[in-house]
Amino acid sequence: MKEIKSIEFKNEVLYLIDQRKLPNSYEIFECKTYRDVNFAIKEMVVRGAPAIGAAAAYGVVLAAKEFLKEDREIFFEKIEEALEVIANSRPTAVNLMWAVKRMKKVIEKNKELELIDIYQALKKEADSIYLEDIETNKKMAKFGNEVIKENAVILTHCNTGALATVGYGTALGVIREAHYSGKNIFVYADETRPRLQGSKLTAWELVQEGIPAKLIADSVAATLIRDGKIDVILVGADRIALNGDTANKIGTFMLSVIAKVYNVPFYVVAPTSTIDFEIESGKEIIIEERSPEEVTHINGVRIAPEGIEVYNPAFDVTPHENITGIITEKGIIKPPYKENILKLK
Amino acid sequence: MKEIKSIEFKNEVLYLIDQRKLPNSYEIFECKTYRDVNFAIKEMVVRGAPAIGAAAAYGVVLAAKEFLKEDREIFFEKIEEALEVIANSRPTAVNLMWAVKRMKKVIEKNKELELIDIYQALKKEADSIYLEDIETNKKMAKFGNEVIKENAVILTHCNTGALATVGYGTALGVIREAHYSGKNIFVYADETRPRLQGSKLTAWELVQEGIPAKLIADSVAATLIRDGKIDVILVGADRIALNGDTANKIGTFMLSVIAKVYNVPFYVVAPTSTIDFEIESGKEIIIEERSPEEVTHINGVRIAPEGIEVYNPAFDVTPHENITGIITEKGIIKPPYKENILKLK
Repeated sequence: MKEIKSIEFKNEVLYLIDQRKLPNSYEIFECKTYRDVNFAIKEMVVRGAPAIGAAAAYGVVLAAKEFLKEDREIFFEKIEEALEVIANSRPTAVNLMWAVKRMKKVIEKNKELELIDIYQALKKEADSIYLEDIETNKKMAKFGNEVIKENAVILTHCNTGALATVGYGTALGVIREAHYSGKNIFVYADETRPRLQGSKLTAWELVQEGIPAKLIADSVAATLIRDGKIDVILVGADRIALNGDTANKIGTFMLSVIAKVYNVPFYVVAPTSTIDFEIESGKEIIIEERSPEEVTHINGVRIAPEGIEVYNPAFDVTPHENITGIITEKGIIKPPYKENILKLK
Repeated sequence: MKEIKSIEFKNEVLYLIDQRKLPNSYEIFECKTYRDVNFAIKEMVVRGAPAIGAAAAYGVVLAAKEFLKEDREIFFEKIEEALEVIANSRPTAVNLMWAVKRMKKVIEKNKELELIDIYQALKKEADSIYLEDIETNKKMAKFGNEVIKENAVILTHCNTGALATVGYGTALGVIREAHYSGKNIFVYADETRPRLQGSKLTAWELVQEGIPAKLIADSVAATLIRDGKIDVILVGADRIALNGDTANKIGTFMLSVIAKVYNVPFYVVAPTSTIDFEIESGKEIIIEERSPEEVTHINGVRIAPEGIEVYNPAFDVTPHENITGIITEKGIIKPPYKENILKLK
């Protein structure tokens, strides 16, 4: 198995694989301040809910480092500001808020300590978030592998792999596990417009790992599903409501409807940190709208005429009734979702 | 209204708007031989079922012109070959075969005439196909406009406009008609991966005409449909079977499923020349698979890694039960389709 290190913190620098540059070039983006981390999340140098969470945690560490030289009062003021900036980098992924909250708690718990010790505690917490993510993904992958049959043909959307997480991946982690456990699987990967995470990132990971796969335009999936060519659909999640409604990359909802009509199992694969226990349903999820250029330009080249308006939501919400199960590190959650999700709290 | 001349035959040359170059540049592609026409259809300089039909007819005229200097026997042999080459330019659009057949009949009917008179008869037939197409589209547009309500929000897929036909368009012809009859409509245009006919061509036509519209990634449509933001869906067709099953641009089937689940009217707009009376159902339609580069590259720029395989069907088949009605120049065909289609024969 190839190791893909999407995120690495070393000598007070956060190193990220620059996902805007793949697959044509492999470059490392260095974050030396929390502002660099804010930029990296906003501009999608790093993306994928779990990866964003870990990057955000190290962003807080970088902020603490920067403000160590300040007076105590100023330190707390400035780090509060930094937490705010990082938390607002992107609106939909709950892991971002979840990671920022964990870091905030560490500050509160250690408020009486020397600043350098607070910094150390923050660093330790970020490392925990980082290491837990890989462990979580491997656990999810094992649970997920139980629903994958021998010779299964799996459809996936967006990128949920090593690049979307600290390592291994969520939905793509299950695919890795199935592949390496010798199940002779085949993958169809949606290219995932507008940002093409399927083409640029998932296809890249699949080629790196030698997992047999074909890339398709997003609207090809429907015919494959109808024609019985897909055994199971695996997608990630950016936020899961108490009732199981799931926000994920735009296009996920469409797949879920087709899957339901043609009786193909549709699983969400996500760590429990993706569950937002504070919202009852998907109606409360804010859907990020991104810039028109994501649709009108590809790699800087204009593909639509000047003057055309664009509607470009980054996510959609799949209603819980279209979801066969939610694969987490604590097992597979089945309906009734609210009841079973609350057991995890 | 702006006049967009996708096709024009003048002084023994077929002039085509080069649709590979839009929207960034407006260039005219000249066909001086039937081989140029074959190339133009194959490479999608000209595309859209009705436009392909008219271009093919002029291709036969160019072939006749070229072989006028030959002996009679050689003339018939060579023109037979040319008909074959033109007919095989692309496999799915029935209008191509339909136009070639019409031209063939003219040759057979006039076999005893002087070659120059056969040429004249062919030229006349091509002109008829050309002029009939515009007339047909205007009739369709009037019938179609009956299903468009005041302030309607219309979703469309691919390009079915002036560029896909000799003029005015099929589904986009209905949109034009609704707009110019003052219905205050709004259009959502699918970008239509992989070739982006929605972004490159439909958006261009909509901007040219000043019709209020937004461009969306194909997988955004599902959410708009679910949320009640779409009043009616209008698409074109490349081939319609006797039972109403319709082959059209990849992604059409997906839309039809979502439309059915959420009870949004879904109309196919196509001239009766798109009906293939020789096939019972969509199962008999050959779906063209195009090159992987359409998915892995955009405007020559690589967007997917080397080594990834691709599945790239150009069309899909929408089953008749997902279609609310087929809008033709002879009126709107409603189910039961076979019975009502046979009445047109």
